Amino acid sequence: MIDLRSDTLTQPTEAMRTAMARADVGDDVYGEDPTVAALEERVAGLLGHEAALFMPTGSMSNVLAVRALVQPGQEVLCESSAHIARAELGAHGAYNGITMRTWTHRRGHVDLDAVRSLYAPDMGTYFVRTAAISVENTHNFAGGTVLPLALLQELRAWTREVGATVHLDGARLWNAHVATGTPLADYGVTADVLSVCLSKGLGAPVGSLLVGSADTVAEARVWRKRMGGGMRQVGVLAAAGLHALDHHVERLADDHEHARLLAEACGLDPAGVETNIVVLDRDDAAAFVAAAAEAGVRVATVGPRTVRMVTHLGVTRSDAERAAAALAGIVAAVS
Amino acid sequence: MIDLRSDTLTQPTEAMRTAMARADVGDDVYGEDPTVAALEERVAGLLGHEAALFMPTGSMSNVLAVRALVQPGQEVLCESSAHIARAELGAHGAYNGITMRTWTHRRGHVDLDAVRSLYAPDMGTYFVRTAAISVENTHNFAGGTVLPLALLQELRAWTREVGATVHLDGARLWNAHVATGTPLADYGVTADVLSVCLSKGLGAPVGSLLVGSADTVAEARVWRKRMGGGMRQVGVLAAAGLHALDHHVERLADDHEHARLLAEACGLDPAGVETNIVVLDRDDAAAFVAAAAEAGVRVATVGPRTVRMVTHLGVTRSDAERAAAALAGIVAAVS
Amino acid sequence: MIDLRSDTLTQPTEAMRTAMARADVGDDVYGEDPTVAALEERVAGLLGHEAALFMPTGSMSNVLAVRALVQPGQEVLCESSAHIARAELGAHGAYNGITMRTWTHRRGHVDLDAVRSLYAPDMGTYFVRTAAISVENTHNFAGGTVLPLALLQELRAWTREVGATVHLDGARLWNAHVATGTPLADYGVTADVLSVCLSKGLGAPVGSLLVGSADTVAEARVWRKRMGGGMRQVGVLAAAGLHALDHHVERLADDHEHARLLAEACGLDPAGVETNIVVLDRDDAAAFVAAAAEAGVRVATVGPRTVRMVTHLGVTRSDAERAAAALAGIVAAVS
Amino acid sequence: MIDLRSDTLTQPTEAMRTAMARADVGDDVYGEDPTVAALEERVAGLLGHEAALFMPTGSMSNVLAVRALVQPGQEVLCESSAHIARAELGAHGAYNGITMRTWTHRRGHVDLDAVRSLYAPDMGTYFVRTAAISVENTHNFAGGTVLPLALLQELRAWTREVGATVHLDGARLWNAHVATGTPLADYGVTADVLSVCLSKGLGAPVGSLLVGSADTVAEARVWRKRMGGGMRQVGVLAAAGLHALDHHVERLADDHEHARLLAEACGLDPAGVETNIVVLDRDDAAAFVAAAAEAGVRVATVGPRTVRMVTHLGVTRSDAERAAAALAGIVAAVS
Repeated sequence: MIDLRSDTLTQPTEAMRTAMARADVGDDVYGEDPTVAALEERVAGLLGHEAALFMPTGSMSNVLAVRALVQPGQEVLCESSAHIARAELGAHGAYNGITMRTWTHRRGHVDLDAVRSLYAPDMGTYFVRTAAISVENTHNFAGGTVLPLALLQELRAWTREVGATVHLDGARLWNAHVATGTPLADYGVTADVLSVCLSKGLGAPVGSLLVGSADTVAEARVWRKRMGGGMRQVGVLAAAGLHALDHHVERLADDHEHARLLAEACGLDPAGVETNIVVLDRDDAAAFVAAAAEAGVRVATVGPRTVRMVTHLGVTRSDAERAAAALAGIVAAVS
Repeated sequence: MIDLRSDTLTQPTEAMRTAMARADVGDDVYGEDPTVAALEERVAGLLGHEAALFMPTGSMSNVLAVRALVQPGQEVLCESSAHIARAELGAHGAYNGITMRTWTHRRGHVDLDAVRSLYAPDMGTYFVRTAAISVENTHNFAGGTVLPLALLQELRAWTREVGATVHLDGARLWNAHVATGTPLADYGVTADVLSVCLSKGLGAPVGSLLVGSADTVAEARVWRKRMGGGMRQVGVLAAAGLHALDHHVERLADDHEHARLLAEACGLDPAGVETNIVVLDRDDAAAFVAAAAEAGVRVATVGPRTVRMVTHLGVTRSDAERAAAALAGIVAAVS
Repeated sequence: MIDLRSDTLTQPTEAMRTAMARADVGDDVYGEDPTVAALEERVAGLLGHEAALFMPTGSMSNVLAVRALVQPGQEVLCESSAHIARAELGAHGAYNGITMRTWTHRRGHVDLDAVRSLYAPDMGTYFVRTAAISVENTHNFAGGTVLPLALLQELRAWTREVGATVHLDGARLWNAHVATGTPLADYGVTADVLSVCLSKGLGAPVGSLLVGSADTVAEARVWRKRMGGGMRQVGVLAAAGLHALDHHVERLADDHEHARLLAEACGLDPAGVETNIVVLDRDDAAAFVAAAAEAGVRVATVGPRTVRMVTHLGVTRSDAERAAAALAGIVAAVS
Repeated sequence: MIDLRSDTLTQPTEAMRTAMARADVGDDVYGEDPTVAALEERVAGLLGHEAALFMPTGSMSNVLAVRALVQPGQEVLCESSAHIARAELGAHGAYNGITMRTWTHRRGHVDLDAVRSLYAPDMGTYFVRTAAISVENTHNFAGGTVLPLALLQELRAWTREVGATVHLDGARLWNAHVATGTPLADYGVTADVLSVCLSKGLGAPVGSLLVGSADTVAEARVWRKRMGGGMRQVGVLAAAGLHALDHHVERLADDHEHARLLAEACGLDPAGVETNIVVLDRDDAAAFVAAAAEAGVRVATVGPRTVRMVTHLGVTRSDAERAAAALAGIVAAVS
């Protein structure tokens, strides 16, 4: 079986397991885990921010990152298929007590005209105030699309002007970096607080980081404990993250190439596939998933009529070619 | 001063005050206020539902109505300038613990294509589920626009098919009814739970009603107490509502005519003004408000570049004509 | 029927109704209701604080008063049968997002040793912090008991020393004032934020006030709107409150005397009844309530084995004597 | 330095690290991690329940366990120094939206008389309902005390009778089991939902389990994802837990003996130390901590006048003897 359901499915490599087994650890709730500290410092530096905080998941990282910018009774604006809006099970309402309004963009981009039109400044006690704009780069459900740096910079400038903030869900920011050559910090400084994941394209088993100012991270540390994310000798996981940063960033280019192979096989324009995710609109989504499974390829639906395929560390060139052939057969058979 | 800032500004009439002073009352937390019970029964009947519940405000009525349909961790879809999204200070996140995604429509209508595209069915533990669609009729910030009945009926049919529910914010449903002649119950039955207000066009000092099934209302009664809305001898307010239903519904046609006068004076097409609200886009919104005040007319901004004028019980034909003349002067002077 | 279930059951008098009918009103959401403003100013002054805010209920007033002192993730300490703990349907958790720890005192007093022992100072990210102590005066479920002023002053001094705050639920503070002769402001200044009710002993149909500093009240005004408590021409209710302050405070002494009559009839020591509430422990609580009803006296249970009787504006001396005779008969019959 | 601040400080042993490095893993969000599944099945079986769910922390496990029993607007009763009340940073209010009332017991036991007196049955819309009683065994802040099984059984029987439920915070239930010889399942079946930790006495780096019925666990799985606790190849951590169950349970007896050595050295009756925690009341708590550190022993305060010492996997017999000697010196010097 070639498993393309998600890049969260990767198995740790032997080298990564060795790094984990040898990790120098301490009680991170007491701030005494040296491996976690090293990872946090390194990721903060890569992204051009003062500090970072290890998190059990990207969901908790996004929830606490948005919380740092938006108070209960305020709102965040985002694209309507953003991970924070669709795939965090309503945590931003249930746990952060905030509301969202959304714009819709086919490729998940920031629509600055829509943002300006939705934006609600502080108008006293009558209207909700827009405290932050959230963007996702790469954008998962739009198909791993890369948000143009110039657009993010324009958003950054405009939010500064009006007194709003920016949250960046960078679960797959590594893919944007590799696909475009843009330095990570160039993306990083377009946001006040961001989140990056180790457990997706980078292939670590568990872990994300919230990145921002030293004050933001200090406060997020308290809320992480309150939310049940304060783990102990978590350096065993941080070691996997450090290993991934050393060995699994540049190879994302392979995943991107493999994704284009799959797209082509499905009759899509490979130029539309910017990173490691292929989204295929099909009225027979469930049947397509079943047919693929029979042909030895696991893919998934992310909507009633949407199939998603994701390449990752566990999919070799040869796997990708075999999967492409199998999918091409299904597409041909159904057409 | 002619006050067009809102139709919430109306003073109770002498006849209404007399009705209030004579009201037969009891402790409504114990369910023993006969005037409240009469009002609840009457409003439920008008709207084609089993039961209704008196509320201190339209905001609490909307919050508890949406709560009846959407659980923490689920979402409601609505138009991006809906009252529940913009003007309830984020209560649906802060107090209901739910999220929203939005579509945008210039006249505040339901955009069924957008709704179908945003709609998220139950897909297990991964995605937020759309539990309800919320519509607002008339739509306040779009300018008192009336949502076409056929559209609401189509929404009703589609939500039944997919297993979702409908919330109707009918704060000004009376205006839609008078403007179109559509029976209130025809609107009412297109929603699972709705909210109507007595304190806007109808001219009562305080009060709204949540309307729905007997079960929904019984549960909302508990949550109203929890939320601090369980008042005692509130029949004094309900009496004003009953009086308003007897005397202030049909006269809304006058308000609508007055609004068209104002629109024309401001250079807008009066045909675009369907009820009692005129929305005027002006880059100099704050200056316009100031100029109008100097000319004896109070209007308000509801956005950085949006002026709103609302006609109501306290604005006579002669007031409307004087205000129109004054506003025409300002528009001419600035152009 | 003589109704002793609660002092919330009072009917507005004719004079109160007249005052309401003549009230000068405005839109209080816009801060334009002169009668509300007059009531707020008067109550703030009586209690020795800068400002006050009209609320639809004592529950909302308590929820927003505690919210002003305790942030989500912090705690309030209170007596275990306090109204905020037992009778607000969990709103402090559901809507304020805070926790409570409790001590137990037979007469509902502050137990300073228990408070000192429970009190949790700020100890960094590991422990919840006690932000406020809440007291209730008179204490409803302990039987209308009066909290000694010296005890409240000692609590006030100690909380200042350790950096905590005090919330006073003064729903029936008027009764404590009349029973002891202590000036209202002497009680008022022992708390940072307090709540008083017009709809209980004072006999107004609806209304409570949150009382505190100007800043606290300004912020509570926003949260009142968010919580759905921002009513419009609410001067009609405030007028009843002003009337009650003029005419219904001193007469509370009668209620207290009547309550002692009832206590004596039930075989209790009347000296234990300090104000207008009599609490009677009976294993046959439900049967007692039924027997009383048959004898023309309505009383209520406030726990599985607790009967409560409350005197009020609607119970005359002659009513109290008749009720006492009826209850004495039941007590004698069952013994 | 001998570190007695907490048993959360343990380093994974070499054998445990090897087990982690070799763990068979999968994406646990998809329910595909065999090592996690094995751990969950084993722990459920040990505790006499149908199912278990791996959690990143004991705090999240307790929050979601209580959530399974208590709805927003209901309450849980617990001892006033329970971990859920003091050491979870108010998460039960902030994230579960529930309230607590508390009793106080010097040894952290269930006080059944207090529970019966506090207990609030469903009394309609007026009073908060007690949905669950929470107990902690062993009780951390009372000094690792063991709750008598007979008491828990009596609580279990009584709650069934009145229609309430029981939550057991069993972070250190292993210690109670080893100290008394009571089978884990005998404790387990006295609760509806419980939580146990791998990262304290058992010495695993990270991890706790929520244990209960299959339905409870299925629903908790969704809420774990919502709360940001849905980790991926988390079998690397579960492997440590399985190793700990094989090798680190019986040895807790050593920790208990070491704790008695420390107690004796501090002038306490060692018979009062039932497991691995020693609590010492000292007015000079902070100075005591500093003196101990100078003498090579790290201890901690858990209250302004409370010192806590905890023995664990990382403290050998010889360490315990050296620490005891050092502490005895400090006690003697100060006296």
